Amino acid sequence: MEKRNQLYEGKAKKVYATDDPDLFIVSYKDDATAFNGEKKGSIAGKGAVNNIMSNIVFALLEEAGVPTHLVRQLSDRDTLVKAVRILPLEVIVRNTAAGSFSKRYGVEEGTPLAQPTLEFSYKKDELGDPLINDDHILALGLADQADLDRVRIYTRKVNEVMKNFFETKGLKLIDFKIEFGKTPDGRIILADEVSPDTCRLWDIETNEKMDKDRFRRDLGKVEETYQAVLERVRA
Amino acid sequence: MEKRNQLYEGKAKKVYATDDPDLFIVSYKDDATAFNGEKKGSIAGKGAVNNIMSNIVFALLEEAGVPTHLVRQLSDRDTLVKAVRILPLEVIVRNTAAGSFSKRYGVEEGTPLAQPTLEFSYKKDELGDPLINDDHILALGLADQADLDRVRIYTRKVNEVMKNFFETKGLKLIDFKIEFGKTPDGRIILADEVSPDTCRLWDIETNEKMDKDRFRRDLGKVEETYQAVLERVRA
Repeated sequence: MEKRNQLYEGKAKKVYATDDPDLFIVSYKDDATAFNGEKKGSIAGKGAVNNIMSNIVFALLEEAGVPTHLVRQLSDRDTLVKAVRILPLEVIVRNTAAGSFSKRYGVEEGTPLAQPTLEFSYKKDELGDPLINDDHILALGLADQADLDRVRIYTRKVNEVMKNFFETKGLKLIDFKIEFGKTPDGRIILADEVSPDTCRLWDIETNEKMDKDRFRRDLGKVEETYQAVLERVRA
Repeated sequence: MEKRNQLYEGKAKKVYATDDPDLFIVSYKDDATAFNGEKKGSIAGKGAVNNIMSNIVFALLEEAGVPTHLVRQLSDRDTLVKAVRILPLEVIVRNTAAGSFSKRYGVEEGTPLAQPTLEFSYKKDELGDPLINDDHILALGLADQADLDRVRIYTRKVNEVMKNFFETKGLKLIDFKIEFGKTPDGRIILADEVSPDTCRLWDIETNEKMDKDRFRRDLGKVEETYQAVLERVRA
């Protein structure tokens, strides 16, 4: 399967058409951004880590009954995926307070939450991806109620599966962001990626941050941490 | 019924204890603030307008089956109310895009919404009253699911009743903010106020703003507009 036209270039990935209209090729980059693009950089090897790790996790999720866009890995950076239209929503699950949640609600980072929370952000860079609720989503026509119900069911399952999986790797799943897409025949499937760019993962023993916060907050050992996470996930 | 200890002073009202532990006296001030207290001023006669208007609307809502804190008006500025603990949530309903919604989601002010939206803000001045969703509210223990269900049922009714009422007065209800309280025996009732401070009201014919946006945005005729709204509501 060959790359044809580039359809899209995001902050961390490019998406290409293929000769099959139902299939795209996703190509992961080493580019890193944070704070809505205000901080820019590069993390050597990140593209391969995120590609390989996403595919391992997506395969697990498929087994657990969550449909994903994964078809097959083509190389360290490239993966063949089902063609979808991405819903303009970031789906964020939190098990422990951190990041924007801690800041927004004045809750100390690391505080366990009484129950996992799900929140949506409206994917719109120029607005800073604002928090949005179901009523707003429906009023703005960004998705319909059936889509949201389906997204919630899958997302709960994703959290359950990933929390358990990362725990066996000595990693605590603090929070994560996923995205869903709609296939041409209208099915909702998990798309985008699952990686240290999109999950907060803390070492279970030491609480050491093993995710993109090392880049965001200049904590050092950025490349090494991405590699270490991949090693654990692969082990 | 006499005022005893002052229990609370907010931006627009004071609350006093009475000799009856189940009753408070609310006293409306002319003080006006906007943008989370950054803009401060005074609107002559506002306290009386907001007190009298709130009581008229609350009486209507009681008739429609929404329990409120209203006991009886004591004077132009003072009202005897049931003692409640206010839930730390602003409940905001929008029929038409305006204000923070328009800014947050990039939707032109005045755009009708496909359906009314309900949103919660976490009442916390130092955080800027951030938007919050049901999952966050439950995780932070700000209210329980039964409270939220009850709040939603009442709020839908409030919107219906107020939209129709204001329409008969030549006013379009763009959006509004209400607050609920919990009585000592655990019932949820409507508290706080309904006034040009807390509702966006536009003249049905001219779309002229007849609410606190005249103060927020320096549109002039502030006092006159508050009096005009009260006259229409009383007519």
